[in-house]
Amino acid sequence: TPVVSLLLITDEHMLAFAEKVFASETKGEGVRDEISMFEVQDDCPILQQEMAHHLHTDEDTEKRKVLAPVADVLFNIPTYLEVPDFQRVAIIGDYASGVTMDDFELSCKGVYRALTIREKYMRLAFQRFPLTTSQYLREIEGEPFKPEHTVQPVFTSPPKKGEDPFNTKCLPENLSWVARMKDGVIYTYKDAAAADQHKPIENMPAPDYMTFIDDMNFLIALIAQGPIKTYAHRRLKFLMSKFNVHEMLNEMEEMKELKLNPHRDFYNCRKVDTHIHAAACMNQKHLLRFIKKSYQVDADRVVQNVKGKDVTMKELFANLNLHPYDLTVDSLDVDQRGKSSPVTTGQVRYYLLCHKGPDLLAEEVASDLEDARYQYAEPRLSIYGCNPNEWTKLSSWFNKHRVFSPQLKWMIQVPRIYDIFRGKNFVPHFGKMLENIFLPVFQATIEPHANPELSIFLKHVTGFDSVDDESKHSGHMFCTKSPKPEEWNIVKNPSYSYYIYYMYANITMINQLRKARGMNTFQFRPHCGEAGAVTHLLASFMTADNISHGLNLKKSPVLQYLYFLTQIPIAMSPLSNNSLFLEYAKNPLLEFLKKGLMVSLSTDDPMQFHYTREPLMEEYAIAAQVFKLSTCDMCEISRNSVLQSGLSDEEKTHFLGPDYLKEGPEGNDIRKTNVAQIRMAYRYETLCYELNLIKEGLKTE
Amino acid sequence: TPVVSLLLITDEHMLAFAEKVFASETKGEGVRDEISMFEVQDDCPILQQEMAHHLHTDEDTEKRKVLAPVADVLFNIPTYLEVPDFQRVAIIGDYASGVTMDDFELSCKGVYRALTIREKYMRLAFQRFPLTTSQYLREIEGEPFKPEHTVQPVFTSPPKKGEDPFNTKCLPENLSWVARMKDGVIYTYKDAAAADQHKPIENMPAPDYMTFIDDMNFLIALIAQGPIKTYAHRRLKFLMSKFNVHEMLNEMEEMKELKLNPHRDFYNCRKVDTHIHAAACMNQKHLLRFIKKSYQVDADRVVQNVKGKDVTMKELFANLNLHPYDLTVDSLDVDQRGKSSPVTTGQVRYYLLCHKGPDLLAEEVASDLEDARYQYAEPRLSIYGCNPNEWTKLSSWFNKHRVFSPQLKWMIQVPRIYDIFRGKNFVPHFGKMLENIFLPVFQATIEPHANPELSIFLKHVTGFDSVDDESKHSGHMFCTKSPKPEEWNIVKNPSYSYYIYYMYANITMINQLRKARGMNTFQFRPHCGEAGAVTHLLASFMTADNISHGLNLKKSPVLQYLYFLTQIPIAMSPLSNNSLFLEYAKNPLLEFLKKGLMVSLSTDDPMQFHYTREPLMEEYAIAAQVFKLSTCDMCEISRNSVLQSGLSDEEKTHFLGPDYLKEGPEGNDIRKTNVAQIRMAYRYETLCYELNLIKEGLKTE
Repeated sequence: TPVVSLLLITDEHMLAFAEKVFASETKGEGVRDEISMFEVQDDCPILQQEMAHHLHTDEDTEKRKVLAPVADVLFNIPTYLEVPDFQRVAIIGDYASGVTMDDFELSCKGVYRALTIREKYMRLAFQRFPLTTSQYLREIEGEPFKPEHTVQPVFTSPPKKGEDPFNTKCLPENLSWVARMKDGVIYTYKDAAAADQHKPIENMPAPDYMTFIDDMNFLIALIAQGPIKTYAHRRLKFLMSKFNVHEMLNEMEEMKELKLNPHRDFYNCRKVDTHIHAAACMNQKHLLRFIKKSYQVDADRVVQNVKGKDVTMKELFANLNLHPYDLTVDSLDVDQRGKSSPVTTGQVRYYLLCHKGPDLLAEEVASDLEDARYQYAEPRLSIYGCNPNEWTKLSSWFNKHRVFSPQLKWMIQVPRIYDIFRGKNFVPHFGKMLENIFLPVFQATIEPHANPELSIFLKHVTGFDSVDDESKHSGHMFCTKSPKPEEWNIVKNPSYSYYIYYMYANITMINQLRKARGMNTFQFRPHCGEAGAVTHLLASFMTADNISHGLNLKKSPVLQYLYFLTQIPIAMSPLSNNSLFLEYAKNPLLEFLKKGLMVSLSTDDPMQFHYTREPLMEEYAIAAQVFKLSTCDMCEISRNSVLQSGLSDEEKTHFLGPDYLKEGPEGNDIRKTNVAQIRMAYRYETLCYELNLIKEGLKTE
Repeated sequence: TPVVSLLLITDEHMLAFAEKVFASETKGEGVRDEISMFEVQDDCPILQQEMAHHLHTDEDTEKRKVLAPVADVLFNIPTYLEVPDFQRVAIIGDYASGVTMDDFELSCKGVYRALTIREKYMRLAFQRFPLTTSQYLREIEGEPFKPEHTVQPVFTSPPKKGEDPFNTKCLPENLSWVARMKDGVIYTYKDAAAADQHKPIENMPAPDYMTFIDDMNFLIALIAQGPIKTYAHRRLKFLMSKFNVHEMLNEMEEMKELKLNPHRDFYNCRKVDTHIHAAACMNQKHLLRFIKKSYQVDADRVVQNVKGKDVTMKELFANLNLHPYDLTVDSLDVDQRGKSSPVTTGQVRYYLLCHKGPDLLAEEVASDLEDARYQYAEPRLSIYGCNPNEWTKLSSWFNKHRVFSPQLKWMIQVPRIYDIFRGKNFVPHFGKMLENIFLPVFQATIEPHANPELSIFLKHVTGFDSVDDESKHSGHMFCTKSPKPEEWNIVKNPSYSYYIYYMYANITMINQLRKARGMNTFQFRPHCGEAGAVTHLLASFMTADNISHGLNLKKSPVLQYLYFLTQIPIAMSPLSNNSLFLEYAKNPLLEFLKKGLMVSLSTDDPMQFHYTREPLMEEYAIAAQVFKLSTCDMCEISRNSVLQSGLSDEEKTHFLGPDYLKEGPEGNDIRKTNVAQIRMAYRYETLCYELNLIKEGLKTE
């Protein structure tokens, strides 16, 4: 593989390299090690090569002396009075050991630019970027840090006592603005004339398509560069070892903090199930109970249409020669292992999931969660983009059944199945699918009173998810020459990155419009890195507030290090992975947690994967048992889950403390989170140390 | 190590060999591989040696031809109409491949004798021995099998509707018999004169001490014999592989049976938590809730005595400067990891566990189980043998608080801590401790109306457990020269086997007496094989109806094979092991299950090990996830747990079907157990195949 010096090459070079990378990826499709270009082997031959090649030159030894000793670096890191004394791991001497000065500088420049790219796209879409990282970026640039430059998403607070969450009176007035799609992105205009001339309302900038592609190609080249892979790999190894030492030295001290912390323990600190699909959020037993109940109260409901003839639930069961009493979890065929159940039983299930699933959710699951006062969930409801009425139906259901629970924060998932809809001629091109997904949201935002049900529903929606099997490879590469969505009329599916870009761009535009109207904004939280190409994680690095899964970060040390530096939350579901992809004990959850990536735990699909009435607790319990997590670890994961979630500022303040937006120990209220201040200080100082390294690396220029 | 031909040696030889084994064990104390004498390495060098040495001689080839081909064997095995067709694993040709004829015969003789030993001691104590195995033993002996020779324990049926479980009117009348201890065993006599002359009532035979020691020494020699180890190791390997093939071939067919099985699934098939300590049976959150509740209703109760001064709960909390509201799971210090909490908090906990624990159990845990209609538990309450009033206190508490729940079957655990009591001069010798433990039970059995509370309590007790850290090695060897319990007045603790023998002997005597009186009997179900010497598992093989843990069966193929052939139930607790001894993924549960050992799942100590409100379901869920168990596996384990438990005949009939005492598929009612008939047939035929091998091996003499 060619080593291209990243900072000298032109965009053309970069594109060529990116194409090479892409080609190698496509070729390797289906092969286990398809992305080996981004990987560093565990025994790390690159590293050894590099060391043998470079390290012991005199030139290098001299260069190293130029740098400030690390002791200075450590003194610059703030500590807080409220953190109890603990044993710190300090590294005295050469701080970038194992890579040459040149490589170190190259790496720092590359990482710096990557961080600024994410910062830019997060700010544009009202998504989050860590304050600490921003501060270091400004220091590197010699610019003052302005807190007013930071943005935060806006979520709807829970209703006050006596307030009706379905009340349409408080919706803002209608405007006469016009929303219209251009090149796959919806813009807002003052009126139709402005729309015709494509003169959108000011201060609502769309992401620049060409710049985005450039940024993406830069990042593709970055994560495949040998020296930078080596550097990131070494930093991650260091983070791992450092945490192990920290844990060994301070475990007891952390536990002591928790013991002295009154009233709060793991059980009553808030935790959010950050990734769960609404249609699968009851476990098998739940579903069964629900079917039996439905039969009792609703046996005459039409559940099937066989060759034009309606079939009621009663008739269906009669046809099956089956009484609901006899139904079992085994016959529901939810379990992965058995696939041979009668189709007809499958039909009952299908009906229930499609037509009644969300009701069930509202009725049964939410009440279970309300019992478990400290648990919250963020179920995903589907919008397919197949036709523009989907939002109407969904919001009508939401309002009609008054589906609201303070324990639930709703999200919209969009399956990446354009190819199927196009194949059936449901949509003429990809642009229409995007329009079906997003235009109704713009319209309800502009004219809330013309779409009261949807407007109310959108108040309680906190974000968008992008879902499907990531291992399906489209064969398309997202680049400057890609057809625009309106031109994408072939049956083939666009690539993951193409989907992600257009979802991001439209969410960005919606958020700017909603922010201007004083409404809540949406986060982009795609499924990412569960399988498939490593570039998915790159697309999300540029666009997503946070992601679900992230397993493939194991395959790219550079991306993993970037996810650490930008503290991108990752909702992990080791039980789901265990069933589908990855043996439990091999799940990277523990590794990521130790290194300081911001992980949370989620159930994904309790209907398939969980056994008890408390799927989220089951998820935590198994992680605790298999990975031998401490109480402090568990509470840290819980805290991460609240931070990651779409809970409102008011709720987060209540659950984490009034300073939760501050980073480090001063942002932590141990009385609410049960996370040791020592742990918080360790995390904060460790992040600062890594960011400071980059600053130092750039100073030497 | 000397190879002693087992069947030729005299008792003296056997003793000498047993002593050698014992010495090697004592020497290796604390060393990880202390019992290597009983082990066969995974790569099995013995096996390879043996093969190289013996196998290819002509003599052998000839001898092999004498035997009936296995196809015949297979045809002798009964199959049942109700078992669906499935693919059977048949081995055609040489059936004892890998061992020489001589070794095969030697092994069969040794195993046969071992089986008869267990059969004898089980029958004597009204404990269980598999019918199938008995039938094969009779066939080997050329004796007819008489069903009337089989014994079953007797457990009290649950009260009928309106019946009071505490009603003393139905107790049998008082007798004037006398119970008195002789040489550590309590006998029943007609009167004091008969007792003075040691003429016990007839037909209540005690186990013969000298025979027992002989039998034990035989078994010690057996499990250390190279050829027999090799044979057992090969059979177990075969059982494992055979199950894997069976699973591969019939997994779908088994699942199909379950899917077609109406109404029943894993969730509503009965399961029993077969090993749980009463004082630890609530999880941490339970305990916390209870302490807070106790403070509200019972703050003036004396909970502590400091230097002669009583301290109430209110005063205690005031002294601690602590309000119960502030108490947390962390501060309870139940968790293994942290040990530094204030002693005082520990005191509160201690008080609650000792004085209130069982109340809590009855109040909270039982009600949780009643919610979960299909779950039962067998909590252990402690009798220490420190003084004779312990039974009075315990039964008074039981009756006063009307501690009864149909979901709970009570057991008595006796800690092996004579050395501590003797050290404090609480008891003069070991015999007194035994007397304190057992004499009150005899007395209440003879004169129920003189001890009504105890008599009622005993009706609801189903067995005895022996508990303590097995890795503590006493240094004593149980042999003919061991001091009798009344002479055991040193501070040193007797060995595990010594304890086990005297508990077994006394339980045997109680059971004979109670059986004669038409009362329920007790099972002996010690903790065994969690750690320590392999000989513990040997002692239990001779004496115990079933055991808890059994991990060390991994270390002795001969014992493991014997446990398989006699289907000794093993209550396993992988989550407990995971915290204390053995990483979850390395737990032998899966291996044992596949080989066909009769395993169940239990929680042991939810206060330490479990997180959710459903500890038993958590235990099953984690096993299912980590070991990828099928529904059929889980239901088989559940069925095993009911069989193993002290649930009454009436309950077992209700939960397993009217023929549950029959073995094989005809004993299984899939509508109640959700265990596939194919699985049952596989298990039954596999057991028959192995027993038949032994029969064939003995025929050739």
